[in-house]
Amino acid sequence: MAKNLVFGHQNPDTDAIGAAIAFSELQQQKGQDTEAVALGEAGEETQYALDYFNLKAPRVITKATEETSNVMLVDHNEFQQSVEDIAQTNILSVVDHHRVANFETADPLYYRAEPVGCTSTIILKLYKEANVTPTKAVAGIMLSAIISDTLLFKSPTCTQEDIDAAKELAEIAGVDVNTYGLEMLKAGTNLGNKSADDLLDMDAKSFPMGDKNVRIAQVNTVDLQEVFQRQDELEEAMAKANSQNSYDLFVLLVTNILDSDSELLVIGEPTQMVEDAFNVTLNNHRAFLSGVVSRKKQVVPPLTESFQ
Amino acid sequence: MAKNLVFGHQNPDTDAIGAAIAFSELQQQKGQDTEAVALGEAGEETQYALDYFNLKAPRVITKATEETSNVMLVDHNEFQQSVEDIAQTNILSVVDHHRVANFETADPLYYRAEPVGCTSTIILKLYKEANVTPTKAVAGIMLSAIISDTLLFKSPTCTQEDIDAAKELAEIAGVDVNTYGLEMLKAGTNLGNKSADDLLDMDAKSFPMGDKNVRIAQVNTVDLQEVFQRQDELEEAMAKANSQNSYDLFVLLVTNILDSDSELLVIGEPTQMVEDAFNVTLNNHRAFLSGVVSRKKQVVPPLTESFQ
Repeated sequence: MAKNLVFGHQNPDTDAIGAAIAFSELQQQKGQDTEAVALGEAGEETQYALDYFNLKAPRVITKATEETSNVMLVDHNEFQQSVEDIAQTNILSVVDHHRVANFETADPLYYRAEPVGCTSTIILKLYKEANVTPTKAVAGIMLSAIISDTLLFKSPTCTQEDIDAAKELAEIAGVDVNTYGLEMLKAGTNLGNKSADDLLDMDAKSFPMGDKNVRIAQVNTVDLQEVFQRQDELEEAMAKANSQNSYDLFVLLVTNILDSDSELLVIGEPTQMVEDAFNVTLNNHRAFLSGVVSRKKQVVPPLTESFQ
Repeated sequence: MAKNLVFGHQNPDTDAIGAAIAFSELQQQKGQDTEAVALGEAGEETQYALDYFNLKAPRVITKATEETSNVMLVDHNEFQQSVEDIAQTNILSVVDHHRVANFETADPLYYRAEPVGCTSTIILKLYKEANVTPTKAVAGIMLSAIISDTLLFKSPTCTQEDIDAAKELAEIAGVDVNTYGLEMLKAGTNLGNKSADDLLDMDAKSFPMGDKNVRIAQVNTVDLQEVFQRQDELEEAMAKANSQNSYDLFVLLVTNILDSDSELLVIGEPTQMVEDAFNVTLNNHRAFLSGVVSRKKQVVPPLTESFQ
């Protein structure tokens, strides 16, 4: 029988890849034939974590059914974020921390979602329920996923459970959370070698809002000025992306992971909605948002509301 | 703040009501303000179990938002099986053992589904994870739910986990599983005093399949012939239900709980899909399905597939 493929979402972040590795490892401990794969190449932050813990980046796939009919999803459930042939697969299980939408199965399955900051926090629970301790390397990549998703516990999506899980995993992985965490996050902020298009595409999602199509991209940095030195180039790429993909509005959230603040760059219309949502005035297409680091919790909800 | 309502599916069976009672009780033990309610009156089997363990039947509701915005679903997730205003509620959690379909939330939630025979089996796990022991009465209604959903462990949906959970709950409830179980199941097969409409409504669910709306009802009996003596009356009621509720196809699964077989009665179109799904020829709108007792595992999946 073909093995079960385990994978996170497209444009994988550290949780999408780390949770796949950790969940696959747990299934193998329980006697299942599984393989962790990824729906895209690991980014620099994730690669730093993989290298640090001597793990290989998972093989990249875009379809599943050529290899197997049985899949296990982590860190996502919406079909448009999954393999292109997801509707033709048999989904055995989902472990996730997002809303449920555009998801359907023909058969009963194992579905475990909890409203915590990171999928890997839930997966640590599953290890405990199965009386299995993650190896040092697996604990390390799970810890990396929690640090990544919660921006070292500073994101409002972070819960006490995430913090507790990270402490426990750091112990097994043998690293200091803050020292390691900051180094790992910084590895993902190496933006200088990326084109403006790459930068806009690193972590971007589209959202229908009112009758508009809004694109919201996020990049992490340790120096806002370094990113905004390239403002002209970014604006040009955003305008091009708008016209090529029928986005009405492109919002780039540039997040300073050291100060836990963000600055917006906004191209397209209606900009009024952005000003209303955050009670700011755009100046040279920009606005500073003090204390804002989470697209999911601090950007999408107020923006959605201002479009209504 | 208004309390959180906990409920199972429309046309509640013993698990829909038992799981709601058990999950609500657990939430209360954890300090939450919850109330178990039901989306319909308890049937005779459920009433037998409630009476046996001195429990009150939950209050019946059809809408939630007049009372609260926060709801917790057990034993279902598909919106068409829930309160009519489910899309306007804030779904805090789901505990279920069915496929996921026609379900969507705006926010992350707690979702726990496992492919076991009964929701109450999962809820016993949740009690253990919270270090709470169910009371004698709650253990009794959870045991009843497992017996009901697994037809006293004879359904192919039954897993070792269901059997183990039932043993453990029987111990707490202080009953002999087989003696109590058979009495409880028989209490639900008293069909003679029911109208054809009542009978079709006892345990019925709607399923969108392809572009058709399929209604699948199930009744348990100890004598198939007793039910089919009323075939004309049933067919008339099924045709009426189809036209009144825009069902394309009405499938009645009459299950002999002693022999673990079923006979289908089918009204509406396309009947070809039914014949294809089970590799049978309908004769006088009927077909015998040897060894079939589970709508979820033996009827919905092949029928869904034949509509694709």
